[in-house]
Amino acid sequence: MSLAEKVLQGDIRSSARLMRLLDDEMEEGRQELKKLYKYTGKTYILGITGPPGAGKSTLVDHIIASFRAGGKKVGVIAVDPSSPFTGGAILGDRIRMQRHSNDPDVFIRSLASRGHMGGLTSSTEEICLVMDAMGKDVIILETVGVGQDEVEVVDLAHTSVLVTVPGMGDDVQAIKAGVMEIGNIFVVNKADREGADRAYREIMGMLDMANWKGQFRPPVLLVEANTGKGIPEFMEKVDEHRRYLLENGLYEKFYASRAKCMFERILFSQLARTLMETLKGNKEWPNWEDDLMKRKIDPYSLSQKVIKEFVKIRD
Amino acid sequence: MSLAEKVLQGDIRSSARLMRLLDDEMEEGRQELKKLYKYTGKTYILGITGPPGAGKSTLVDHIIASFRAGGKKVGVIAVDPSSPFTGGAILGDRIRMQRHSNDPDVFIRSLASRGHMGGLTSSTEEICLVMDAMGKDVIILETVGVGQDEVEVVDLAHTSVLVTVPGMGDDVQAIKAGVMEIGNIFVVNKADREGADRAYREIMGMLDMANWKGQFRPPVLLVEANTGKGIPEFMEKVDEHRRYLLENGLYEKFYASRAKCMFERILFSQLARTLMETLKGNKEWPNWEDDLMKRKIDPYSLSQKVIKEFVKIRD
Repeated sequence: MSLAEKVLQGDIRSSARLMRLLDDEMEEGRQELKKLYKYTGKTYILGITGPPGAGKSTLVDHIIASFRAGGKKVGVIAVDPSSPFTGGAILGDRIRMQRHSNDPDVFIRSLASRGHMGGLTSSTEEICLVMDAMGKDVIILETVGVGQDEVEVVDLAHTSVLVTVPGMGDDVQAIKAGVMEIGNIFVVNKADREGADRAYREIMGMLDMANWKGQFRPPVLLVEANTGKGIPEFMEKVDEHRRYLLENGLYEKFYASRAKCMFERILFSQLARTLMETLKGNKEWPNWEDDLMKRKIDPYSLSQKVIKEFVKIRD
Repeated sequence: MSLAEKVLQGDIRSSARLMRLLDDEMEEGRQELKKLYKYTGKTYILGITGPPGAGKSTLVDHIIASFRAGGKKVGVIAVDPSSPFTGGAILGDRIRMQRHSNDPDVFIRSLASRGHMGGLTSSTEEICLVMDAMGKDVIILETVGVGQDEVEVVDLAHTSVLVTVPGMGDDVQAIKAGVMEIGNIFVVNKADREGADRAYREIMGMLDMANWKGQFRPPVLLVEANTGKGIPEFMEKVDEHRRYLLENGLYEKFYASRAKCMFERILFSQLARTLMETLKGNKEWPNWEDDLMKRKIDPYSLSQKVIKEFVKIRD
């Protein structure tokens, strides 16, 4: 039986092996993923984004438990920036989720945000496809909400939950700065802390300013992930958004648009690799490179020259 | 006089205008940057990276003052992730630097990490080139140290300073996770806080494990940016690293390697744009796109097919 077939039967060891092959950019992994592709595009992906220390992992722990209670098979992808500067307790986070680690229907995978050649979005998308093929009903995607790369990861989710906590500085200013459009559900966690009501009102105030006619207006929820308070209401809103997507044909649209994005990313990386190999094999290249490094030519002009000389695109 | 000529004379309004043109991806901006390119590659770039709340902006304020006292012309690029999740006071940060805003030899530019089509690294590099052409002796590049995109920005600096504060969780674990290689100088800020000595010892311990023979061993400094304590010692280390680069021919090597990176980035983005335009103008494309969205073909296979049909790279 091929690796792909084993993954389709939900085999955990084979799935983990395929993920490692993909991580290492092995052609073997690509070949198996190709075979799996047509069986994917079904799983519901829930993104949880927030700053270090917002209690994302505790929240995710509740979400896993809740989906499991409903009989759903769950995949979790935790994107850990491999930086000492997250302010979060990396070990602690992982430990918190471990109560699910003996459940064969929960598959948890951590992903460092550094060192993936194809970029974070690419790696995450490939792992999503494997979990999808494994038959997971839900994938929970936990990311740290700083930086463009993480925001791109959010685009991989059907439903994006933005988690914040009271007292994180100029909340309103920051929200104005442009993150509003990426959240489908807002959570103010640690809602027993001072300033929770203020944070709640500020987010509501910002949402009031937009026109939501015919669209899903993001709810704002006060949650205490530590005690579990507010979790059932939160899960209800998650389900509401999922049903909204299904009823409006947005669920399939999501997967269609993901397929296009993935295609473009793969196309450009294949093309770039081929072109650089050709270029480096050409006897004129060392001179051009030298001119570039000595600033006799600028990178824009050299790029135009290389495309003109080496690349022919037919109509 | 052309915009480029005015920038070369250090004209502030023209430089700001060119930066806006580049931000908006206007061809006019590119043309002017091409003219400037050969005059660039001189400025010393100092990167300051750390988590939200580490006191980076206060530190940068001291660095500006210190370079100005030495008669240096200074550019500052502050990369603000446009996320509510930085935990930092965005407004406060900007206000802290404003005491330099009337100094014509200090040019401060903020850059949001979202919404730049060409990516954050690309935008930052273009702004560096303009400041370089303006005649700035030093560019200070302040970034939030979470996420891959920010780490890439660090590669733009000659000297990378990593700022942390006591009590940020499992320091050693996180440092092990792979950020050690990007720091040239480590700063433990807010050194009057409990745990500063522990953070210092942990970083030193990690550095002890590597072999620095013939290389610059990163120093670790205890600093109190609020009071200015430790700043002179810090600036001395910055200068030491700069001299190390100069004396070992690494200063020019840096600019040579940046030129190559920039060339590749521009080449791929130009190529990608041309190819997608061709593709979308082709009458077969709608069918292929449909097959992709219906998962009749996987993105890897479609990418190979498109390259085979449309692209010819000559040897």
